[in-house]
Amino acid sequence: MPMGRLEAFSDGVFAFAMTLLVLNFPVPRVPSGELARALLAQWPSYATYVVSFFVIGNMWINHYAIVRLIARVDRPMLVMNLIHLLGVAFLPYPTALLGAYIQSEPDARVAAVLYAGTATVIGIGFMGFWIHAVRRGLLRSFVDQARARAATPRSDISLLAYPLAMVVAFFSAPLSLALFALIHVYYLFNPIAEALAGSASAPADR
Amino acid sequence: MPMGRLEAFSDGVFAFAMTLLVLNFPVPRVPSGELARALLAQWPSYATYVVSFFVIGNMWINHYAIVRLIARVDRPMLVMNLIHLLGVAFLPYPTALLGAYIQSEPDARVAAVLYAGTATVIGIGFMGFWIHAVRRGLLRSFVDQARARAATPRSDISLLAYPLAMVVAFFSAPLSLALFALIHVYYLFNPIAEALAGSASAPADR
Amino acid sequence: MPMGRLEAFSDGVFAFAMTLLVLNFPVPRVPSGELARALLAQWPSYATYVVSFFVIGNMWINHYAIVRLIARVDRPMLVMNLIHLLGVAFLPYPTALLGAYIQSEPDARVAAVLYAGTATVIGIGFMGFWIHAVRRGLLRSFVDQARARAATPRSDISLLAYPLAMVVAFFSAPLSLALFALIHVYYLFNPIAEALAGSASAPADR
Amino acid sequence: MPMGRLEAFSDGVFAFAMTLLVLNFPVPRVPSGELARALLAQWPSYATYVVSFFVIGNMWINHYAIVRLIARVDRPMLVMNLIHLLGVAFLPYPTALLGAYIQSEPDARVAAVLYAGTATVIGIGFMGFWIHAVRRGLLRSFVDQARARAATPRSDISLLAYPLAMVVAFFSAPLSLALFALIHVYYLFNPIAEALAGSASAPADR
Repeated sequence: MPMGRLEAFSDGVFAFAMTLLVLNFPVPRVPSGELARALLAQWPSYATYVVSFFVIGNMWINHYAIVRLIARVDRPMLVMNLIHLLGVAFLPYPTALLGAYIQSEPDARVAAVLYAGTATVIGIGFMGFWIHAVRRGLLRSFVDQARARAATPRSDISLLAYPLAMVVAFFSAPLSLALFALIHVYYLFNPIAEALAGSASAPADR
Repeated sequence: MPMGRLEAFSDGVFAFAMTLLVLNFPVPRVPSGELARALLAQWPSYATYVVSFFVIGNMWINHYAIVRLIARVDRPMLVMNLIHLLGVAFLPYPTALLGAYIQSEPDARVAAVLYAGTATVIGIGFMGFWIHAVRRGLLRSFVDQARARAATPRSDISLLAYPLAMVVAFFSAPLSLALFALIHVYYLFNPIAEALAGSASAPADR
Repeated sequence: MPMGRLEAFSDGVFAFAMTLLVLNFPVPRVPSGELARALLAQWPSYATYVVSFFVIGNMWINHYAIVRLIARVDRPMLVMNLIHLLGVAFLPYPTALLGAYIQSEPDARVAAVLYAGTATVIGIGFMGFWIHAVRRGLLRSFVDQARARAATPRSDISLLAYPLAMVVAFFSAPLSLALFALIHVYYLFNPIAEALAGSASAPADR
Repeated sequence: MPMGRLEAFSDGVFAFAMTLLVLNFPVPRVPSGELARALLAQWPSYATYVVSFFVIGNMWINHYAIVRLIARVDRPMLVMNLIHLLGVAFLPYPTALLGAYIQSEPDARVAAVLYAGTATVIGIGFMGFWIHAVRRGLLRSFVDQARARAATPRSDISLLAYPLAMVVAFFSAPLSLALFALIHVYYLFNPIAEALAGSASAPADR
């Protein structure tokens, strides 16, 4: 199967999940003159909003970079992509929970575990998608298959970051969220796609 | 009419309907320390979320596979496609009802009937779209028209699954939901598009 | 300016507005055994849902058909397209109002007037978009410019249907809604795009 | 990296953010005969809806015009684009706040400051995206690089409009909102993209 609609459909889910995050901000109904204070009291929601926006944005960048290396998809890859998107589309919910509960222990840790667990599902779908493509030789011709095969296990390690964040979440929600922010600042400048493909550089293909 | 925007528009509806499912999870407002229990009590919503996500995802895969076999659409096909999408866009509602009522009889069965009824509308739109294309000879040239024509009635039978799930729903909501999960696990690996087209294989057309 | 992103962006608004309609169905919280009755009592919401879904779907079909006849857009056409989309994106609100108030006079008529008024804004944006394209000669080369110019005033008349529905709405909400259903069943099979362009037939352009 | 999916993904965020604005209109639950009055009392929500719809629409037009001048994007530009979209996706929230509080001082000014602050973030992402492309020579070959370089600082000044609106917001919310409307009516007919690129005219490239 060709890639065009897979991209369009996935882009829709990424873009929509990011935009839905804004529904986590209810309009506060407060007495006159209290709005500024009410908005400032929402700071955990702002923090989780920005983190989740960049987490999903970064996942989109990696999806975008990976899919460009792939010539075609088969059915198991479509299923893996659905598992990846299932997690992406669900992320607004643990984001809302974290925003609401990050200041009240032990519930903050419950929310953080769900958040990191969702990210783990996202990572499993993503790696399954990639590993299957490498094993079945579905990469585009310009990708060095041997380097991609060799690079993949090392990149698997980088995906341990999500389960690690889940373990951390059992002890501290803010620390787990900070770890997420850190992972994604790192990924923004050291993209997982390049690590996975052994730094294959795609020709300008448009 | 050419196919490009039909695909983009339909992809939008599929992607949004899948992403909107997350709005079925309200943030619980519970006393300190009760969040884990409150989230676990939502298990029916998680179950229906995952089933509906894969039901819509699978419908997208079949839509994607079918549309690739079609050269162009006429007006009745656009209407059939709208009926298909009407059901897809509506599915988040019976999903929410099932999540809320699956544990309380007899309302669970009411919700399950509405769920299976919506799926039946989706199936009718889908089969109407395909049958019209076959009859009017709107398939692409690489598709074996005779095989597609012969394969269609047998595939109609597979679509009896949705009305069957509706009949089952009158007796048991969980059984009906389980039947849905089963149907779609089956379809994921035995795609209806291949059955319909007599296993036409599209050339890599990108 | 070329047309590709105008189509993608507009498709997003159409698809999303159609999918958002489902948020007009709240999950009823009723005593055990009352769900069936509660769902049946929502029938006005189902009726308005189906009408609005096909109204927006039909507008998408016409947008799709018209844009294919246009070679490129200038700034005033982008503004006209935004006015068109402003109405499309707003339609879920009067749809919700109609669903909630159609059985209680005189509020039903208030909702129906807002509904038909929104459709009128949609029609103004649409016709402004088309008339500007015809006047500035922005149509694609295969379109017969003289026929398009001649056909436009006659089609303007067809757009009087929306203001007419607004006048009817001052007297009867159900009649106004029925008129909308009628107009759009008619348009589904007698597309406004063909009337506007003097039945230009686009070559299969994919 | 090529531009296709960047456009599709960004279009999704723009289209969804615009369509989500309609959720700021709750269905009023009023005694019989009071609906018209209740809808009229929502006028601030209508005003902010229209302004925000055109603000986002205009940002889409500028994004559309700018991206056409760019040959390819690198990682920092993807990050800048995400910052731009972060603001766009967040705008429905300050829009809702303004609609709810514009008539009650001093909260109206709080909402207006947040609104203008969000627009400032949007502007920073947008200018960062453009300036980086100019500095790295990522423009398409038909763009006069020297003119683009010379035109950029002058255009920076035009983006001072958003911080200015923020300063104004500290004194008057309606004045700040009116300033936004004015800025965007101006931009609709004097697009920032043309100013930035030294009025490069793109060839019809589709």
